Amino acid sequence: MPTPAASTALFPHRHLLGIAGLSPAEISHLLAAAEDAVALNRQVEKKRATLRGRTQINLFFENSTRTQSSFEIAGKRLGADVMNMSVGNSSMKKGETVLDTAATLNAMRPDVIVVRHHAAGAVALLAQKVDCSVVNAGDGAHEHPTQALLDALTIKRAKGGIHGLVVAICGDVLHSRVARSNILLLNALGAEVRVIAPSTLLPVGIERMGVKVFRTMREGLAGADVVMMLRLQLERMNGSFVPSVKEYFAHFGLDAAKLAYAAPDAVVMHPGPMNRGVEIASEVADGPRSLIRDQVEMGVAVRMAVLETLAQHLPDA
Amino acid sequence: MPTPAASTALFPHRHLLGIAGLSPAEISHLLAAAEDAVALNRQVEKKRATLRGRTQINLFFENSTRTQSSFEIAGKRLGADVMNMSVGNSSMKKGETVLDTAATLNAMRPDVIVVRHHAAGAVALLAQKVDCSVVNAGDGAHEHPTQALLDALTIKRAKGGIHGLVVAICGDVLHSRVARSNILLLNALGAEVRVIAPSTLLPVGIERMGVKVFRTMREGLAGADVVMMLRLQLERMNGSFVPSVKEYFAHFGLDAAKLAYAAPDAVVMHPGPMNRGVEIASEVADGPRSLIRDQVEMGVAVRMAVLETLAQHLPDA
Amino acid sequence: MPTPAASTALFPHRHLLGIAGLSPAEISHLLAAAEDAVALNRQVEKKRATLRGRTQINLFFENSTRTQSSFEIAGKRLGADVMNMSVGNSSMKKGETVLDTAATLNAMRPDVIVVRHHAAGAVALLAQKVDCSVVNAGDGAHEHPTQALLDALTIKRAKGGIHGLVVAICGDVLHSRVARSNILLLNALGAEVRVIAPSTLLPVGIERMGVKVFRTMREGLAGADVVMMLRLQLERMNGSFVPSVKEYFAHFGLDAAKLAYAAPDAVVMHPGPMNRGVEIASEVADGPRSLIRDQVEMGVAVRMAVLETLAQHLPDA
Repeated sequence: MPTPAASTALFPHRHLLGIAGLSPAEISHLLAAAEDAVALNRQVEKKRATLRGRTQINLFFENSTRTQSSFEIAGKRLGADVMNMSVGNSSMKKGETVLDTAATLNAMRPDVIVVRHHAAGAVALLAQKVDCSVVNAGDGAHEHPTQALLDALTIKRAKGGIHGLVVAICGDVLHSRVARSNILLLNALGAEVRVIAPSTLLPVGIERMGVKVFRTMREGLAGADVVMMLRLQLERMNGSFVPSVKEYFAHFGLDAAKLAYAAPDAVVMHPGPMNRGVEIASEVADGPRSLIRDQVEMGVAVRMAVLETLAQHLPDA
Repeated sequence: MPTPAASTALFPHRHLLGIAGLSPAEISHLLAAAEDAVALNRQVEKKRATLRGRTQINLFFENSTRTQSSFEIAGKRLGADVMNMSVGNSSMKKGETVLDTAATLNAMRPDVIVVRHHAAGAVALLAQKVDCSVVNAGDGAHEHPTQALLDALTIKRAKGGIHGLVVAICGDVLHSRVARSNILLLNALGAEVRVIAPSTLLPVGIERMGVKVFRTMREGLAGADVVMMLRLQLERMNGSFVPSVKEYFAHFGLDAAKLAYAAPDAVVMHPGPMNRGVEIASEVADGPRSLIRDQVEMGVAVRMAVLETLAQHLPDA
Repeated sequence: MPTPAASTALFPHRHLLGIAGLSPAEISHLLAAAEDAVALNRQVEKKRATLRGRTQINLFFENSTRTQSSFEIAGKRLGADVMNMSVGNSSMKKGETVLDTAATLNAMRPDVIVVRHHAAGAVALLAQKVDCSVVNAGDGAHEHPTQALLDALTIKRAKGGIHGLVVAICGDVLHSRVARSNILLLNALGAEVRVIAPSTLLPVGIERMGVKVFRTMREGLAGADVVMMLRLQLERMNGSFVPSVKEYFAHFGLDAAKLAYAAPDAVVMHPGPMNRGVEIASEVADGPRSLIRDQVEMGVAVRMAVLETLAQHLPDA
C-alpha cells in the first residue's frame, strides 16, 4: 500500500460519493490499490490490519445481498469493526429523519459510513452532516461508484487496459445508477461508450454524457469489446412503460446470436442479480466470455481499496 | 482502567439490572471508567483488548437502533466477540419461552448478555437463570440504567458535577424507563429532580421517588440547570389517554420560549429518537444548548465502562 | 489440535453434507477435536486463532436461533471473519436462483459456507458449485449432521461411550432431519437404535435404516439408556395428519411416568426448541436426567471442531 501521506496526495477526497469529480489519476490510483487487495483475497489468510480499531457502519435503506456483503467482508478482512444497520430494525420506523440518524451514528464516532438509499442525492446530503468518510453504495438512479470501479478493474484485467475500448451498455439505462457511474468512469479513462436501449428506457439528453445512442443490439454491439448488460429494474418502474418481458428479451436480451454482433473476443458483464431469460440468456451468462463472477471478486477488492484509501483522510491522520 | 481486584471491590455486582441498588460510589466508579473510554473513542485506533475472547450477546426483544448499535460498537471496540439476536429471527416465534431462550444462550457460555424486553422485570428474571453477567438495556417502563449513566456523564462533563443541580424531566414520565432510572441516579448523586407532565402522563405516587411535581413548563423549568425531555411513547399508549400532538406541543413541547424559563446557561437533553415538533422544537434540538449528540457519544463510552467493569466478575476471575 | 497433515488424512472430506458417507473413525476424529473445544469454551478467554483470516458465511434460507448462533459463536471464537446472510435481506427476493447466490458468494472467496435450506439436497447441490467447504446446517427432512455429532458428544460424555447403548428416538421421525442423521451416526458407532412414533409420523421403510420400530412408549422405552425426543414439526405438516396436541402428549409426550419405562439411569435429550407440554413435560425437561443444556454447549464445540477440521482442506493448504 502507498504510505498515508502519498495516498492523501493521490486521492484528496474524504468521501466517495460518485465517479463525477474524480480525475483519471484518482480512478487509476484506486484501481491500483485494488490489485493489491485481489492478491490478498486469494491467500489462505485474507487479513490485513489496515483498519484495526476503525469503525465501519453499513447503513442500508435498501436491501442488497451482494453490495452489503461485499462491503462487510472488505471491512472485516482489513480488521475494521463492522456494524450493519438495516432500516427494518431502525428507529426510522419510529419517525426519525435520515439526518437525525446520520447525526446519531456520527456521534458514535465511526470512521466510515457506507450508505445505500433509494433517493438520488440522499447520500451526499448525509455526508455533509458527519465528520467521518462516507461511501455511496448506491443512491436512487444517481451513482454507484464502487460498481463502476469494480467493472473497470474487471475490464482492465481482461483486456489489459480501458483506453480505446468500445464498451456497449445495454438495457434499462433510465433507472440505472450503474450505467451512470460506468459512463462517467469509462469516458474518463478513454473508452468509447455506447448505450443500447429502447427510447422508453433512456434518460432524456443522455447523449450529453458523451455516449453514442443505439436503438438495436445489432447496430450497437457491432465491434464492441465489452458488452455490459443492465438489470431490468422492474421494481423501479412505477409510472413508466413496463415492457413485456418476452418482447424485451427478443429485442434487447443478450443471447449467443446477439453476442455474435460484437467483436470475436468480446467479454460479457452484468452487475447482478441477473434476471435470466429477461436481459440475459444462461448460455451467455454462464459461457466462456462471461466475466460476471470476476466482477463479484473484484467488488470485494475495490471496496477494500476504497476503505483503505479513505482511511488516510481521518481527522487525526 | 482499575485493576481487576480493585474494580471488583468498587463494583461488587455481577449484573447491571437498574440504578436502584447502586451506591453513589458505585455510580461514580462507572462514570470515571467511562471517561477513560471517551478518550479512547476519540483516537484513530479505537481498540482495547479488555474483552478479547469474551462473548457478548445482544438479545433484543424490542427493536432499537441506537441502544443496540451502541452496545455492539462498545463490545467490538473492546475486542469481544459480539452476536446480535433479534426476536424476528428467533425461535421465540416457534413458541419457545424467554427462559428457555435464556438457558439456551447460557449454555453457549457467553460472558455477558445485553437484554431489552418489553416487560418490566423480564431482564431480572432472565438474569437469575444464567451464569454470566446481564445488562438491562431497557425493560418495559421499569429501568434503563445505561441511559441514566450516559445522561449523568453528559451532565457532569457539561456542568462540572451533578450535586446541587436542578434537573427538570419533562413529558411522558408514565411510560418512561428513562425517567425512572434518571430520577434514581440523579437523586443518588444529590441533584434536585423535578418532573413536569400532565397528570395523565404521571405515575401515581411519583412524589415518593423524591421528586417535585409540576404541571406547567413555566413553573417546573424556573431556574432549572438541565432540561431533560422525554420521548412521547405513542406506541405504548394502548389504553391510556393519548393527547393531541399539537395540543401536547403547545403545553409541554420545548421551544425557545419555554426554554427561556430555565436558567440562562441551562442545557437541553433528549434520549432520542426525537419526535421533532411533538416534544421538542428543532430550534432547541439543534441549538447551542443542546447536548443531544453528546449523549450519544457518552452512550458508547458508558457501555464500554459497564462491559469492562462487569467482566471483572466472571466465574474464574 | 492435530497438525494439518494428520487431520487431512484423518478426515479427507472438503464438505460436511451429512453423516452418510462418514466412517466411524472420521466421526470419532471430529468428536475428539470437539473435546478440545469444550475445554477452550470453559476458559475466560475463549479464543483461538485457527481460522484467523478465513471468511465464514452463514447462509440461512430458514430461520434458526440456536443453530445459526452456535455456528456464529464457533467461527468467531476461532478468529474467523463471520458474515450472516438471511434470506429476508437477500436478492433471492428479487428472483435470483440459489445457484446464482452460491456462485456470487463463492466469488467473494469465503473459506466455508454454512447452509440451512428447506429443501432436501439443496445444500449438496450448492456444494458442487463452490470452491470452498460447505457445512450442512439442515436441509429439509434430509440431514443435520452437526446436530447428530453434538448429540453423540453429549451421550459419550454422559455414558462414557456409545457402542452397545440402547437409544430410543421418539416422535415426529417423518419430518426430522435430526432423526435421520442420528440414526446414521448411532448405528455407525454401534448403538442399538429404536424409533417410537405413530405410524403417521414414520417414513415408509424406516426399518431399512437399521432401526427397530415401536408404536408405544412403554414398549420402545423399555430398558433404553438414552431417550431422545424430537420436536413436533407442526410448521412442516402441510398435507399430512396433524395430531391433536393433547392426544399426542398423552401417547408420545415424555413425562416422568413414561420415563420410568427406561433404564434407571437413562438420560433425556431434545434438540430444541422445545414444545413444553407437547412432546416433553417440564418435569423431565428440567429434571436431573435432562442433558438438554449440555447438548447446546456441545453444539458450539462440535461446530468449532468441524470448522477447524474442514479448514485443513482449503485449496492452498
